[in-house]
Amino acid sequence: MDHSRFFSFVGGQAGPWRVQSVRPWRGETLETPAALDVYPGNLTALPADANWLLRGVTSNQRYVNRGEQAALMAVQQGLGRADSTCAALIPIRKNAAWWALTQEERREIFEERSAHIAIGLRYLPAIARRLHHSRDLGEPFDFLTWFEFATGDAAAFDDLLAALRATEEWSYVEREVDIRLTRAG
Amino acid sequence: MDHSRFFSFVGGQAGPWRVQSVRPWRGETLETPAALDVYPGNLTALPADANWLLRGVTSNQRYVNRGEQAALMAVQQGLGRADSTCAALIPIRKNAAWWALTQEERREIFEERSAHIAIGLRYLPAIARRLHHSRDLGEPFDFLTWFEFATGDAAAFDDLLAALRATEEWSYVEREVDIRLTRAG
Repeated sequence: MDHSRFFSFVGGQAGPWRVQSVRPWRGETLETPAALDVYPGNLTALPADANWLLRGVTSNQRYVNRGEQAALMAVQQGLGRADSTCAALIPIRKNAAWWALTQEERREIFEERSAHIAIGLRYLPAIARRLHHSRDLGEPFDFLTWFEFATGDAAAFDDLLAALRATEEWSYVEREVDIRLTRAG
Repeated sequence: MDHSRFFSFVGGQAGPWRVQSVRPWRGETLETPAALDVYPGNLTALPADANWLLRGVTSNQRYVNRGEQAALMAVQQGLGRADSTCAALIPIRKNAAWWALTQEERREIFEERSAHIAIGLRYLPAIARRLHHSRDLGEPFDFLTWFEFATGDAAAFDDLLAALRATEEWSYVEREVDIRLTRAG
């Protein structure tokens, strides 16, 4: 098994990220743990004393076209920047109506009508991100998005979420939990 | 965990399908077992005495558009037909160049230049199929396609494979194994 693209997020008692808040935006929330740890790889069992385990895998692009990809690559920055002391983990599940759409119908809603990529671009390079796919792993969420940013960009991050949640695309979101973190230490 | 879309294919000593042949088309082959069993669900360990275990998950459409989907739905038939005494399991892995393409570039090659859907349509309803995605599970193959057909359609099935393998899309296939089966009993 090649699990090099897997990441396991454990909400529990220990880890480099302190949990500031866990708030549901749609549907059922998650328990609020003290801390969060991110493991590269595929944890198959909940560690002792942990509250929850969420897993996802980085994968090929589903919606971005060549021009959009070039625009993103030109400005985005990686995770782990020294001043990125804030993070967020946003697990999302979309509804059955979304997944019954064809690829071209989903792309039309995603970008032509909701400007998902264009909105994200406005917040680069401040807000770094990594998308993990979970739906085909049998997980409770379809996507786990991990964001990192400096304290001074926390308000911009709130703006980014508000802009996305106002889109037509977000009308297909049936569960979303907003987990805010700060680096322990 | 919701593993209702998972299927586990076990090549071993027992199962309702007798293995006629295991032939590599590209890259490394698989061992030739005596029989094959198909389990709904996600087997996490190789059963005793089995040769190999391959897993996949049925998922949302990646390439088919609305018109193509309607054309497929109008003619395709389900698995398990009484006269479908022949089956094939074709595990495929595409190369890194394929997965580095954007969605629209992949669609262009898949259908506009390779006619993957149009070719498949010519062999409906004779050749029934179910596609399983494996790439994001960390499996050795990207896709497992399961086919069922009557003895009299075995030559048509060979034609279908030959037509697909002659396409531009197939130039991205780096590993493919062709496993032919007949129903035991």
